[in-house]
Amino acid sequence: MTKTPPRGFPKSEFQARTQAAQTQMAAEELDGILLTTEPEIRYFSGFYTAFWQSPTRPWFLFVPATGDPIAIIPAIGADLMKATWISDIRTWDAPNPGDDGISLLTDLLSPLRKIGIPMGHETHIRMPLSDYQCLFSNLPNITTSDATPIIRKLRMVKSPAEIEKITHICGIISQTFDRLPEFIHVNQPLEQVFREFRREALRLGADDIPYLVGGAGPGGYRDVISPPTEKPLQNNDLLMLDTGATWDGYFCDFDRNFAIGPPGEEVRRAHETLWQATEKGMDAARPGATCAEVFNYINQYLNGNQPTTANVGRMGHGLGMQLTEWPSIAPWDHTVLEENMVLTLEPSLNLADGLMMVHEENILITSGAPKLLTRRTPRDLPVIR
Amino acid sequence: MTKTPPRGFPKSEFQARTQAAQTQMAAEELDGILLTTEPEIRYFSGFYTAFWQSPTRPWFLFVPATGDPIAIIPAIGADLMKATWISDIRTWDAPNPGDDGISLLTDLLSPLRKIGIPMGHETHIRMPLSDYQCLFSNLPNITTSDATPIIRKLRMVKSPAEIEKITHICGIISQTFDRLPEFIHVNQPLEQVFREFRREALRLGADDIPYLVGGAGPGGYRDVISPPTEKPLQNNDLLMLDTGATWDGYFCDFDRNFAIGPPGEEVRRAHETLWQATEKGMDAARPGATCAEVFNYINQYLNGNQPTTANVGRMGHGLGMQLTEWPSIAPWDHTVLEENMVLTLEPSLNLADGLMMVHEENILITSGAPKLLTRRTPRDLPVIR
Repeated sequence: MTKTPPRGFPKSEFQARTQAAQTQMAAEELDGILLTTEPEIRYFSGFYTAFWQSPTRPWFLFVPATGDPIAIIPAIGADLMKATWISDIRTWDAPNPGDDGISLLTDLLSPLRKIGIPMGHETHIRMPLSDYQCLFSNLPNITTSDATPIIRKLRMVKSPAEIEKITHICGIISQTFDRLPEFIHVNQPLEQVFREFRREALRLGADDIPYLVGGAGPGGYRDVISPPTEKPLQNNDLLMLDTGATWDGYFCDFDRNFAIGPPGEEVRRAHETLWQATEKGMDAARPGATCAEVFNYINQYLNGNQPTTANVGRMGHGLGMQLTEWPSIAPWDHTVLEENMVLTLEPSLNLADGLMMVHEENILITSGAPKLLTRRTPRDLPVIR
Repeated sequence: MTKTPPRGFPKSEFQARTQAAQTQMAAEELDGILLTTEPEIRYFSGFYTAFWQSPTRPWFLFVPATGDPIAIIPAIGADLMKATWISDIRTWDAPNPGDDGISLLTDLLSPLRKIGIPMGHETHIRMPLSDYQCLFSNLPNITTSDATPIIRKLRMVKSPAEIEKITHICGIISQTFDRLPEFIHVNQPLEQVFREFRREALRLGADDIPYLVGGAGPGGYRDVISPPTEKPLQNNDLLMLDTGATWDGYFCDFDRNFAIGPPGEEVRRAHETLWQATEKGMDAARPGATCAEVFNYINQYLNGNQPTTANVGRMGHGLGMQLTEWPSIAPWDHTVLEENMVLTLEPSLNLADGLMMVHEENILITSGAPKLLTRRTPRDLPVIR
């Protein structure tokens, strides 16, 4: 496992992110970008708290065309925001359904002409729609445009410090999977398997495990986003755990399969096919290739082999501050890969009887072959006896 | 600790929720309610997955004026949705930025005239704004109205099965706090304290601990939403952990304070004041009282005593499928308390030098005195030596 990296980022990193956004904003003649979602506000400010679990209060960060970002936030977050590099912090006593930041935003934005707001794929506006409508009815002279391309372009390419955090959590969870045969056993309810996985991941240094899904069943599993049942693990089961754990706000996202007792021929063959498909993905994932090309290269291999590709919509995606980020390894995504993108490769197969099998690794795009951030799953399906 | 209740809900509970929504919809002449957010979709369907961690795919549930809800969801969720009581499940191969459910929604909604969408306090629309705008430009004859009051009214009053789940997780975390002196110690980095808390909560039966914040410092802490630092616990510190853990998708939300070594006079007095303030809250929290009245009763007590009330915006809130839900124990919330509401009581105090102290319990509104769901914090501040 890697040495624990430092938490947080130097101020210079937030300044560089802000300046890179401002360069793009200038090209579109934007007066600023208004942000309402956790990853975006954290990306530019460093504001990091689990308090986003509460849907009650909206939070805003405005990245102006020049100068530092401005936080417009509930008073309860003022002290934590003061600990970031942000100095212009405007607060109100939230919650206040009559005026949850709308007057402050109106004052800030009313001199402006054109602002960007992320409103495209994989985004949403985290504030009540009626407040959003009220805000822009206060601002009849402002036009809005979609800032998704600006944010997407920035966030897709990771800094060395970001890569270090993702690498660290990938290492912790790789070790947790390696140790799995030591803390699970036949006849253990799946719910308990999940619980022990979380406990071990925490022991090994994960901050949290917000995402843990999977399944187990004879010869395969039926869906890949389920919470665990109380059904005990049994001989002949194929067990899959897919996990997104975090360290300092950065995710890993990968899964592992385990056979409970010696696996059948179909399962062994599917595992080999998925393992090879991931090799194909790693062969294709080079700077200059598009996501669609990587998808097609994996898909071509799968179509020449096993049953049909399972219908999960894509074969991988970006990874970082969120479990899934732009881009998508999908036929419709023509994003050109660049050095320092972090991606998942995630081929999947349909087995007989509506069952399926998935496999996932996390990689870093480099100037040459991609670097595996996860410890490569063994080519032979691991067996728990 | 309570016996582990059954997971999930009987179909009859979802039918009752749907019918209760339809009764309210009839009064407003709504043709249906369109839902996009996790708790709302789960409330009416039982669809429960951590996959919402991924922001990539939108999910929709439509509750029509008559008949059962209709799911419009990514194909990856079809099997899990089929395991719920929902039978009309329409899927598309998501992600598909060119048409992420918009055609399916347009087909469904175009015969209708007036639909409700939650757009008020504590809500947001979980889909790209540009898709939302595209959808309604496809539907020029539909008017929308705010469905927040309908959803809010339903979700605020809990069913016996919901109360059982909340009670269960409150019991698990009460036990975790009781055992805290056994697994933390002086000189332990705060980060490690948090990690051990999570591990113990899982061991005692929590499914997950999505929310864990707090602080420690000599004589008090400075904010109440921070992630942990690596600073070791020291004698004279006041330690606070505030946690939202879940069991079967239902939250507890409460905190506990611990003195590291014998506490100073100010801290002891503040703890006594907060303990008494919570008693006042429990005296006031009866069916028929308003949230504002409960707030004022607690506030009056605090104002007659210690320093000023800390500025966290309110003194409690609803609790259930989310860490925080309607209503707010706040001067502007005139919601009338009803039997089977679950609330937090959360008075807070400013101490000297910008420090603060908070305290929180979870209660169930009954026909008489509220029922504590948390194990009441000891009146004397617990001391770790």
